[in-house]
Amino acid sequence: MGRSFQPIDEQVTVNKLENLWIYNSAYQCFDWGSITFGPTIEHVQRDYEAPGGGGLYLIPGFIDIHMHIESSMTTPTEFSNAVLPHGTTTIVADCHEVANVFGVEGLCDYMDLPSLVDVFYAIPSSVPSTSMELETNFGPIDAEQVKALCKRKDVIALGEIMNANDLFSESDNRTKRIIDTFKDQKPGFPIEGHCPRITGEMLSRFIASGVDSDHTQQTAASIREKISAGMFLEIQRKSVSKEVIDALKAPELAGRFCFCTDDVLPDMLAKEGHLDAVLSDALRLGMRPEQVIYAATYSPSRRMNLLDRGQIAPGRRADFVLLDDLETLRIRSVYKNGSLVYEQGSGLLARTKLPALKKEYLHSIHRMPLTAEQFDLSLESGERDITVIEREESTTFTRFAKQHIHHGGGGFSFRQYGLSLIAVVERYGHEAPIISAFMKNGLTKEGAICSSWAHDSHNLLVLATSVELAVRAVNRVIAEQGGIALVDETEETFIPLPYGGIISIEPIAVLSGQIQQVRTWLVDHGYQAREEIMNFAVLSLPVSPELKISDKGLVDVRKQQLVDWKNQ
Amino acid sequence: MGRSFQPIDEQVTVNKLENLWIYNSAYQCFDWGSITFGPTIEHVQRDYEAPGGGGLYLIPGFIDIHMHIESSMTTPTEFSNAVLPHGTTTIVADCHEVANVFGVEGLCDYMDLPSLVDVFYAIPSSVPSTSMELETNFGPIDAEQVKALCKRKDVIALGEIMNANDLFSESDNRTKRIIDTFKDQKPGFPIEGHCPRITGEMLSRFIASGVDSDHTQQTAASIREKISAGMFLEIQRKSVSKEVIDALKAPELAGRFCFCTDDVLPDMLAKEGHLDAVLSDALRLGMRPEQVIYAATYSPSRRMNLLDRGQIAPGRRADFVLLDDLETLRIRSVYKNGSLVYEQGSGLLARTKLPALKKEYLHSIHRMPLTAEQFDLSLESGERDITVIEREESTTFTRFAKQHIHHGGGGFSFRQYGLSLIAVVERYGHEAPIISAFMKNGLTKEGAICSSWAHDSHNLLVLATSVELAVRAVNRVIAEQGGIALVDETEETFIPLPYGGIISIEPIAVLSGQIQQVRTWLVDHGYQAREEIMNFAVLSLPVSPELKISDKGLVDVRKQQLVDWKNQ
Repeated sequence: MGRSFQPIDEQVTVNKLENLWIYNSAYQCFDWGSITFGPTIEHVQRDYEAPGGGGLYLIPGFIDIHMHIESSMTTPTEFSNAVLPHGTTTIVADCHEVANVFGVEGLCDYMDLPSLVDVFYAIPSSVPSTSMELETNFGPIDAEQVKALCKRKDVIALGEIMNANDLFSESDNRTKRIIDTFKDQKPGFPIEGHCPRITGEMLSRFIASGVDSDHTQQTAASIREKISAGMFLEIQRKSVSKEVIDALKAPELAGRFCFCTDDVLPDMLAKEGHLDAVLSDALRLGMRPEQVIYAATYSPSRRMNLLDRGQIAPGRRADFVLLDDLETLRIRSVYKNGSLVYEQGSGLLARTKLPALKKEYLHSIHRMPLTAEQFDLSLESGERDITVIEREESTTFTRFAKQHIHHGGGGFSFRQYGLSLIAVVERYGHEAPIISAFMKNGLTKEGAICSSWAHDSHNLLVLATSVELAVRAVNRVIAEQGGIALVDETEETFIPLPYGGIISIEPIAVLSGQIQQVRTWLVDHGYQAREEIMNFAVLSLPVSPELKISDKGLVDVRKQQLVDWKNQ
Repeated sequence: MGRSFQPIDEQVTVNKLENLWIYNSAYQCFDWGSITFGPTIEHVQRDYEAPGGGGLYLIPGFIDIHMHIESSMTTPTEFSNAVLPHGTTTIVADCHEVANVFGVEGLCDYMDLPSLVDVFYAIPSSVPSTSMELETNFGPIDAEQVKALCKRKDVIALGEIMNANDLFSESDNRTKRIIDTFKDQKPGFPIEGHCPRITGEMLSRFIASGVDSDHTQQTAASIREKISAGMFLEIQRKSVSKEVIDALKAPELAGRFCFCTDDVLPDMLAKEGHLDAVLSDALRLGMRPEQVIYAATYSPSRRMNLLDRGQIAPGRRADFVLLDDLETLRIRSVYKNGSLVYEQGSGLLARTKLPALKKEYLHSIHRMPLTAEQFDLSLESGERDITVIEREESTTFTRFAKQHIHHGGGGFSFRQYGLSLIAVVERYGHEAPIISAFMKNGLTKEGAICSSWAHDSHNLLVLATSVELAVRAVNRVIAEQGGIALVDETEETFIPLPYGGIISIEPIAVLSGQIQQVRTWLVDHGYQAREEIMNFAVLSLPVSPELKISDKGLVDVRKQQLVDWKNQ
């Protein structure tokens, strides 16, 4: 097999790879043959009659059409460097975290950052996640902003519509306005959805509004109903179970679903991989490799109408992956636009550098340092029930709970009831009062964690065993202008996320080590969860049930209204 | 099964059809259930656990994405009335005959005619079929006209690219300009192709230029090569053979091909049907009904990115067909936009009327009457070989042939050699000299046929056994301003096609009887062919091999140059 390396930024001459098993996405099989290519594929010679041999397997580069770069706390530039070795050559990103923190202008600057991977974008459709009455962010994204974003050529979808209540209401509302604007500006372009547990006529109404995909956790029953109703399913890693894979193995369903990553934290990205990790799970659960590959290449390309990629065929981008075998899908090398960009053993052969960032993006935590007195935990003395958040450990679900307390006056010693202090400090320059409450299943060991990466509005979320530790943690995040502070009696660790308070400018290898520290700290302090860091960060997300905390107060998610923990 | 009829032009209230087998395009099966709909489908209740019963079969309306309305010699309005009873509810038409006759303005007026069926359009990409040097039409369609047509919302594709020579040449040319303009104006929209017998690297170059479908006649080998190379195949009736159906039955190929009609003459439309006739053939040759239906509904809708139709799912157009059974696909009734528009027994329940047409469209044969003297058949006396057209009877192929003659001076008595006179008379107002030549396998019985429906430039094509009969036939077409004249010694029949000389304004039932007369006349006069009328009309089409006649002269199709029959 002859090949010559061409750096990505130089003129690619015509290359040829011979004696390979070449993926045939039409027949979902491999044909023995050779391929000629420049930046795009020129010719594929498929030798149906040839005997074949022990060659490598050539497949299209992986396409991840539902994901959030900021879940990896990094830039498109560094994300691209991180995922190329995993075979991902195209992504469609919904950057709603950056949109919450910086609005449309900052979002566009983030989207304009360079990358080797082709990055397309879905417009964030729920910014803020609820309303400015229930949480504070940089500002709402409404129809007008959507219209402006539609003018970009790299915008090819409307990002996940989550607010079924808006969709189903008769009245005018932001969700409907955004959908109407998008349909008008980009007719025929896909509208992505998020509809866990929606079924029957409600599901039909959801789909009829134009939202016809879902990437939430599936079951065999939800797959049958949603796909039969015309939905396209994006299967993320937590959905990859034996039941789900068995349901998706029906040959008719090729093209009705794809695999995606949604959220991959930086340490998991470094440790377990990207879309390739999801594919390995599917393979292990019994899906044929040819079908797994289809669902990571051709199928997502069609969903997003990216007709110039996703198959090994003339005229398509020369984005491909060479595999050692089909049992493990182990990646030997990766080509982007016809250039070899990764090779086993040598590592990444082309890397994009992050350009200088505007100062405002690195100074975005607009808040004066706190004092302990600003926490309003005063209670009249006597016996009473207070409302507390009770966190589930296996999901991101939280519940309303009552705690019977006997308060003797002065400071409220919540630790004796096994409660942790949880608070949100607004960071957009309004110097709003601190919102604080109490939580069950928080920390079991003395300490405080404060993070400016706190979904979706990214105010300063702090969980602590005392007000004093909470103040130290928050003030550290303010002083450093964004990041995650881990505070113990005698020790402090700080993970910088200087870009908007949510994004690191370190290489992913460094960042992943730092984030591993956060995970270890949470586990050490008794915070148990399936995904500790994400679980913590969504305690401030007032759209996932049922009792969350924002910079405006405790939020009853189902009723979408504020709750007074002292008197309710 | 309860249902209530709503006329198409009134407000459709919510209807419900119960106890049906409902097509599930995702699983390619039928589910027992019920459907609620207004103009669009509101909800589909699929009762997977229900026992089912002997109900009707509900499937999406048929979608024909490669066809030419003018092959049926009618308007979108009347065509729509004609095909609704056959279950066709959406078409994508490439109206290159009207474009040849009237240019862009006339094309747009034709496209604007009302219809019950949803009519989308592909831009004619080869007008004229060759160049103004080789044939005369109203005028060429070039990049500028394509750009103008791209502004229409009902334009969703670029019509069949036929000129591989242009595509493969290095130089600037009309085909490349048109493709580039279309890609720029309508990125992501399909570009349709016409590439019989193109294979290997040539096929790769064809596809790499962006043309990725083909609707010409296929074989098992061409199917494997073209589909593997990323092409979408549109299978017309003449392609439906046992070999082709066997090749397409592989379950992986669902979504890689669809059925289409291309050209259906009016009498065949009335006698045998529309897309439903193609489906019946496929069914008879052993394709499963569920797969046949898929290839006439979901598959073509996706190829054309018509995401609002092609499946029985919420939010999609309530366009559907009720079948009595799956063995014959016999149509019980047809719904368009939620209204019952056809019912077995009752016939068409809604009909659109053709509006008044601009006078210029009904007076378009710009030619003075002929005299016999205008035919230049003079030959020097003596022995010689002359070049004649030899027509194949089983295809539309013609060959160069030599005829040895002994000419004694005066009028040339070609009948003694078994030749017919063939001539083309320019009709766009230039009063160009008449082009005449001779043909083998023409008429065996005395007579003349002249047609202004003569592809692609639609000059006046006449085939005759004498100059005198030819003159009578041509002059009748000129006097009547378009149509087909059938002239015998003592009798004349005239079929009016007053709209541009190619289109009837009669209902299809009347027209089909008239066209049947033409077919009978041709057969009676010894003109044998698979499809007599089309076979005759393409004798003037200088892109199908190998020797044709235009208003400019005899055309050597392969060399694309004019030939002198007297001296070559």
